[in-house]
Amino acid sequence: MSFLDRIRECNEYDLGRFQPLRIAGHRLGWVRHDIADRLANYPDVFECGERAIVLSTRLDSFETRSAAVAPVLEALRDDGVIPAWRDERYPVAMTYGAPPLLQMERAAFPCLGLRAYGVHINGFVREGGHTKMWIARRALDKPTFPGMLDNMVAGGLPIGIGLRDNLIKECAEEAGIPEGLAIRAVPTGAISYCKEVPEGLKPDLQFVYDLELPPGFKPQPVDGEVEAFYLWPIEKVMEVVANSNDFKFNCALVIIDFLVRRGFLSPEDVDYLQIVDGLRRPS
Amino acid sequence: MSFLDRIRECNEYDLGRFQPLRIAGHRLGWVRHDIADRLANYPDVFECGERAIVLSTRLDSFETRSAAVAPVLEALRDDGVIPAWRDERYPVAMTYGAPPLLQMERAAFPCLGLRAYGVHINGFVREGGHTKMWIARRALDKPTFPGMLDNMVAGGLPIGIGLRDNLIKECAEEAGIPEGLAIRAVPTGAISYCKEVPEGLKPDLQFVYDLELPPGFKPQPVDGEVEAFYLWPIEKVMEVVANSNDFKFNCALVIIDFLVRRGFLSPEDVDYLQIVDGLRRPS
Repeated sequence: MSFLDRIRECNEYDLGRFQPLRIAGHRLGWVRHDIADRLANYPDVFECGERAIVLSTRLDSFETRSAAVAPVLEALRDDGVIPAWRDERYPVAMTYGAPPLLQMERAAFPCLGLRAYGVHINGFVREGGHTKMWIARRALDKPTFPGMLDNMVAGGLPIGIGLRDNLIKECAEEAGIPEGLAIRAVPTGAISYCKEVPEGLKPDLQFVYDLELPPGFKPQPVDGEVEAFYLWPIEKVMEVVANSNDFKFNCALVIIDFLVRRGFLSPEDVDYLQIVDGLRRPS
Repeated sequence: MSFLDRIRECNEYDLGRFQPLRIAGHRLGWVRHDIADRLANYPDVFECGERAIVLSTRLDSFETRSAAVAPVLEALRDDGVIPAWRDERYPVAMTYGAPPLLQMERAAFPCLGLRAYGVHINGFVREGGHTKMWIARRALDKPTFPGMLDNMVAGGLPIGIGLRDNLIKECAEEAGIPEGLAIRAVPTGAISYCKEVPEGLKPDLQFVYDLELPPGFKPQPVDGEVEAFYLWPIEKVMEVVANSNDFKFNCALVIIDFLVRRGFLSPEDVDYLQIVDGLRRPS
């Protein structure tokens, strides 16, 4: 049984296959060489050099950058390079909360190796000294990771909505959790990773919240994103995370972070410090 | 008010002033150039080259390494290079829990820039929805950081004693906490940092535990290491950590980690992700 395997799987990549992407003077993304070759067809937008790809510096505002990049990404989508198009805009910024330099389609973030942000909520119940955790199974028709296990509630952070409002919205939409209960969710930090995927690179960060639910409450699928919810003893959650790939890759990290913070992992375990260090990495 | 200032102060160093120290084939320490000049006087023990200092490879066991290093450190102590000698042995190993390569005097770890490990316990009380934290003031005659504020209980990890046993021992000796209460402490991860100090470099790691105490319980100084204990509302603890250097440097990090994990810091804060990333660094 190895939590370290889950952490390693979230951090498998070879930057030798990628070129840095610079936007407004900062290295914000990574573009795989075959995708870079496609971007070279749009020299007014992406200046593709030997060592880096630069978003044209003539594009000097949020509006001009966003407007210039959009049709390029749509062309890549039409060529099948960007799957699972969502029609949802995420901000591109130096870090979370910094002024966005542009906005673009969520599904295109891995294609340009840009960091996306999200919120993940560990829903749990305590009864008689035992901890159980609510686990979601993703809908079988979800465009990404259909049918895999997930945290009780999780969602990306679109542009123009704050963390708290997004959390309340996702709790209602995905799990039928009323606002009065959702606002009890406690922020507990963040996990981050960098994973190479067929679409490109995901150097993402997820804000982590814990939400203790009353024993009688049952989350309910509302918007069709979740197939079912299960209430599992924490020991079963641990076993499935450690011994299988049933969880979507980053959800396993969110659970491991929960296990560390709440003392379900032992510092005497020889892997402990590698696990603690492995849950976060700079962008 | 800035928690980031506390994190920065724990990570101020210039490795340009240091040389790597290799033991049994691994880079385990960092030695400042003026200290390296002194080690050069013991060529049978420390091979001082242009680029690195190597613990003589002829010393090929725990016993031979420990025996050869001890008189060198004693000579440095007598020359005033190693202050606050404790007569307490710590293990030198690849990481916590790995087989020790040698043991040596605790006070000499910064002199060789070796990572030392310890346990720090956040003692707290919850009453009516409010959190208070027990704070210790270090004894005025302690050899290190006398009179500064500290976590309720904290101690280094000597060789040959496990984390749990050490925690129980320190709880009893420093704060009069009985074993039945001490074993309720929950491991919650670790903080790490790298700080240049007059004696050398401290690239240390502290295992962090939370211990919730009953409202009626009062820790009591037992062995003279603590001057007094204070029970402060968490808001006061936050204000003192953020706006002063009253806490011993690494204790501030332990508290900031507590604040992150328990939702006292807001992810909407512009510093939040820098704080989360700043609490841990690889050795």
